[in-house]
This record gives sequence, C-alpha cells and structure tokens, in this order.
Amino acid sequence: MSDKYTQAGVSTGKADLLANSFKTLVTGEFSGSINLAGGPSLVATIDSIGTKFLIANQLKRYEWLGYDIVHHCINDLLCSGQQVTPIAFLDYIASSNIDVDIVQIIVKSISAACSKNNMLLLGGETAEMPDIYVKNAYDVVGTAIGIIDKPFVPGGVQAGALVIGLYSSTLHTNGYSLVRNIFTEDDYHMSFPGIGNLGSELLLPHRCYYPILKTLMGQCDIQAIAHITGGGFTGNVARVVPEYLTIKLTNAWRVPPVFELIQDKGNVSKEEMYRVFNMGIGMVLIVGKDFDITKIGNMGQTIGIVKEK
Amino acid sequence: MSDKYTQAGVSTGKADLLANSFKTLVTGEFSGSINLAGGPSLVATIDSIGTKFLIANQLKRYEWLGYDIVHHCINDLLCSGQQVTPIAFLDYIASSNIDVDIVQIIVKSISAACSKNNMLLLGGETAEMPDIYVKNAYDVVGTAIGIIDKPFVPGGVQAGALVIGLYSSTLHTNGYSLVRNIFTEDDYHMSFPGIGNLGSELLLPHRCYYPILKTLMGQCDIQAIAHITGGGFTGNVARVVPEYLTIKLTNAWRVPPVFELIQDKGNVSKEEMYRVFNMGIGMVLIVGKDFDITKIGNMGQTIGIVKEK
Repeated sequence: MSDKYTQAGVSTGKADLLANSFKTLVTGEFSGSINLAGGPSLVATIDSIGTKFLIANQLKRYEWLGYDIVHHCINDLLCSGQQVTPIAFLDYIASSNIDVDIVQIIVKSISAACSKNNMLLLGGETAEMPDIYVKNAYDVVGTAIGIIDKPFVPGGVQAGALVIGLYSSTLHTNGYSLVRNIFTEDDYHMSFPGIGNLGSELLLPHRCYYPILKTLMGQCDIQAIAHITGGGFTGNVARVVPEYLTIKLTNAWRVPPVFELIQDKGNVSKEEMYRVFNMGIGMVLIVGKDFDITKIGNMGQTIGIVKEK
Repeated sequence: MSDKYTQAGVSTGKADLLANSFKTLVTGEFSGSINLAGGPSLVATIDSIGTKFLIANQLKRYEWLGYDIVHHCINDLLCSGQQVTPIAFLDYIASSNIDVDIVQIIVKSISAACSKNNMLLLGGETAEMPDIYVKNAYDVVGTAIGIIDKPFVPGGVQAGALVIGLYSSTLHTNGYSLVRNIFTEDDYHMSFPGIGNLGSELLLPHRCYYPILKTLMGQCDIQAIAHITGGGFTGNVARVVPEYLTIKLTNAWRVPPVFELIQDKGNVSKEEMYRVFNMGIGMVLIVGKDFDITKIGNMGQTIGIVKEK
C-alpha cells in the first residue's frame, strides 16, 4: 500500500466501511438527534482527540487538549441543524497509568472550554488499564450534548447554494498519525518560516465555530454544515451534499504554511493532503445564494458553489 | 504494596483522589443532570467496560459486551433520581487495529441493548490508534442520556430507611483486572462446582435494573440508589449516605460461588473482595421504612438499615 496514512497505521477505508454498515443502526453524519416529546430535539456526539495526545505528551504540554476535545465535539454538534445550543459535556480519560497531574491539567482545560461555551461539565470518568493502553499513552474522549430547534434535512441543499469555508486554526485534531510519521521529536522543537515553533503550531487548539455560527443561525439560510475532521477536506464536504449535486470549488484560499511543510517533508501527494487534513478550512457552510459574506468578517471566505452533477 | 488490586495494576486510591479534586467541576456521584428551561432535567453518564474486554478477547466471545456497556451506563443513570427514563446512547470503540467483525458484533449488541431499553443509538465512533492501544486491545466506551423528573437531593436519606440489595448477574463490569491476575486462560475453559464454565460465568452481561426500577419509581419512597461498580460494595454504598448517617447490614445474602472461587484461588482478603467486587449485590436502594419488599419479588432482599452514627 502506497498510501502514507495507511502506512502511518490508520485505515480510513475501514472507518468508512464501518460507518456505512452502521447507517441503519445510528443516525446523523456528525451527530445524532432525538426529539423530546413536546420540546426541542436533543443532539449528541462522541469523539476522541486521537493521537494529538502523543505529541502533547512528547512536549509535556497538555493545557490545550481539553479545548481540543470540547471544540471538536461542539463543531460536530453544529453540523446537525440551524439552531444548535451546546448544553453539556462529559469526558472519559483512560491510560495505562494515570498521572494525576496530567489528568488535572486536561480536565481543567475541558472545564474552561465548557465554561467559555456555556456548557455544563456533567460528568467524567478516568480509567487506568495497563493491558489496554500503551505505556504513558492516553485516550481523551468526550461527549457533547446540545439542544436543536431545526435539524438539517437530507436534500436541504439546493443547486446554486454558496460554499463558505471557515478558516481553521491549524491541524485541529486530525492527521496527527501521519504527522508523527514524518517528523521527529527534534523537529517539534525547531522553528520553520511562516510557522514558528513547530510543536506549538501542532498543539494549537481546535477552533470552535460556535461563536460565529451563533451570530449566523436563524439569520441566514444555512442548508448544511460540514466539520472537516477525519477524512479531511475532501471526505467531509462530500458527506453533506445530496447525491445528485456536487460542489465546484471556485475560489482558492491560503493554505497555511504548516500543511506545505508536512507535504514537502513527508513527500505526500496533494490528493492525500486534502483527504487527511483540513488544509486551512475547518468548517464548511452551505448557504443560500443571497448570503451576505461580510457577516463572517475575516473568519472565512466563499470557496465554491453547489451545482447539479 | 500488599493490596492485590494494586498489584493487578489498578489504583482505586488514585481514582478517588481525582474524583475528589473534580468535585467542584462536575456534578453528581454516578451521573450528572441539567435542567432544561421549562422542561425535564437531562441526565448523562460516561463509562467503559474496562478490562472485561480482554477476557472476551481471549475467549473470542464479544456478543454480550454491548449489553455490558449499555446496562452499566443505564444503571448509573438510575442513581440520579426517582423518575429516570433512559433515552439515548452513544458508543466509542477504539483499538490498535480495528477488526471490523469484532466491532460489528459489539455494535449489534449495543444496538440490541438500546432497543430493549427503548433507547435510541444516537451515534458512535471508532478509532484505530496503534500507538495508544496495546495490540488487539479495545476500549469500549459509552454515554447514556436520560430524562429525569425528580433528582435525588443530598440529605434525602433518612435514619430508619431500609437498605435493599438487588442481586447481580455476576461480576458485571468490575474487578476484571484482579480476575485476570488470578486465573489463566486455561482456567476460563474449566468448569467449577456451582459455577459451570468459568469463562461463560465471567462474560455474563451486566444486569440492567431499569425494568425493576420502572415498576418501583413513583410508587415507592426511594431516597437514594447506589450502583455497585468500581470501588465494589463497600465504596459505592457509602457514597449515597450523608456523613451523619451510616448503614448497618442486618441480613446476609448469598454470595455467588464465583466470588468464593476468586477469593480462594487468589488468596484475597474478605475486605478487599467487598472493596473490588459487587459480591452478589449489583444495586442498592435506600427506601422508606414502609417499603413493600414483595414488590421486588426474587430480584433482591432487605440487607440493612440506615441509622445515625
């Protein structure tokens, strides 16, 4: 297999296979919702920060990991409909050997991210399992729960809609297995042009799109939202458009230098880069053609249109 | 350290230390709840089946693991108040190398357990992380979400209340690290008096107390509920009684033979057995002194009373 990401030990094909086989069992693309009798719908999602933890561990810098998991989960919730309010979060942190100091830093970070987004940290669990986890490795898992007034419906996306890209802070929480395969620990301590310290760049927290979406929701014709996570830009944008429509990219955006560095150093094809990483766009909004682009300020730009196949 | 469970690689002291340090950040003992404006409260919990997976993996029998995680989480929800209705579940399954067949068996089992309890399987995620998980090891994590009318309040337990024990099916999902330290894989294939095949006994699913509690809730004066999980019988019962009260055990119950076998083979002290395992009682109800014990049929018995210290 020539695919670099598969060489790095991650099979995205398998994840797709599983996701398809479970489609009859679970609901939603990024999150699932349930209607409460006579009230709003509940929406929830579960995920992990994945191997980003391992880079944090090498650099002994855990202070953003809580923001990573909370923001990642909130962004997944936002994809479920027009009017999403995140309300609660739960965390699960497991390791071969729990270091109380590390867990406290991560939970404080989770708690701060919850407060900032007006979510209650409803509960948490830690588990120490030396026969399940590699020595000193942790998995940081979170569930976000929200309330939604108006879920997106399949087929809600119309030909002629605009495709808006919201900029990412950096890699967010995806592609780190490939990154770890390309760089050494020494590289993380080095500075690169346009990037600065590579370790700091790689550990920047996942950007949260709730503040910008709060200002847009209810005011704009938002037809669908895609959070660019595992599967990268290519895989996640395709998920929210009905089969008879396609997205045509019309406007280039500035791909941050860190992605160019990864591509160069790792000799990764452009196709694979877009399949693994967000490439500078962390969230994609599909909006009506009358959308006022000034509403998003310098948070993003128009990148394409939806058209018939 | 002479403590067998610590030797087996699990430090319950550390978990307590963490739980205490987070008391200001999270709510609840077994689960947390949040009031929805003008509606019911939401209650949610997150946990894992832990090292029970490793025994299932040795015996290549995964069909009950979904019931384990769903029932474990439902039982945690039930501890939050008088009128709990579980409504939704999400799963996260991660491994060094995802075997699609294994994950499908587990998710089918999760889905069946959800259906049986009238819960919607809202979402799920799988992750393949060879640098975080030991080869062929999996962590099976779940979040249960419920609706609650009337949360238990601190101080709701009164002197004179009865302590009712509901019988467990077997070990449920706790104490497996110690079990794995005592028995060999060959032992799992053997039969023992009063137990039958040891592997089958160890893999019996976590009993769900929702059906019996559904018949009791609203009809009886239930003051508190404790789910007997990590921390065993001793640790979990103490958690739900205010500091100025104590529980006096008055009636013995039949400790299932599997616990006697573990104690004998592992040379474990009686104190440690009660600290690690449920010892035959999977859930404890604290109820008003007029409680009609015939309502629980052969599902449990009176085991004690609540009295002033």
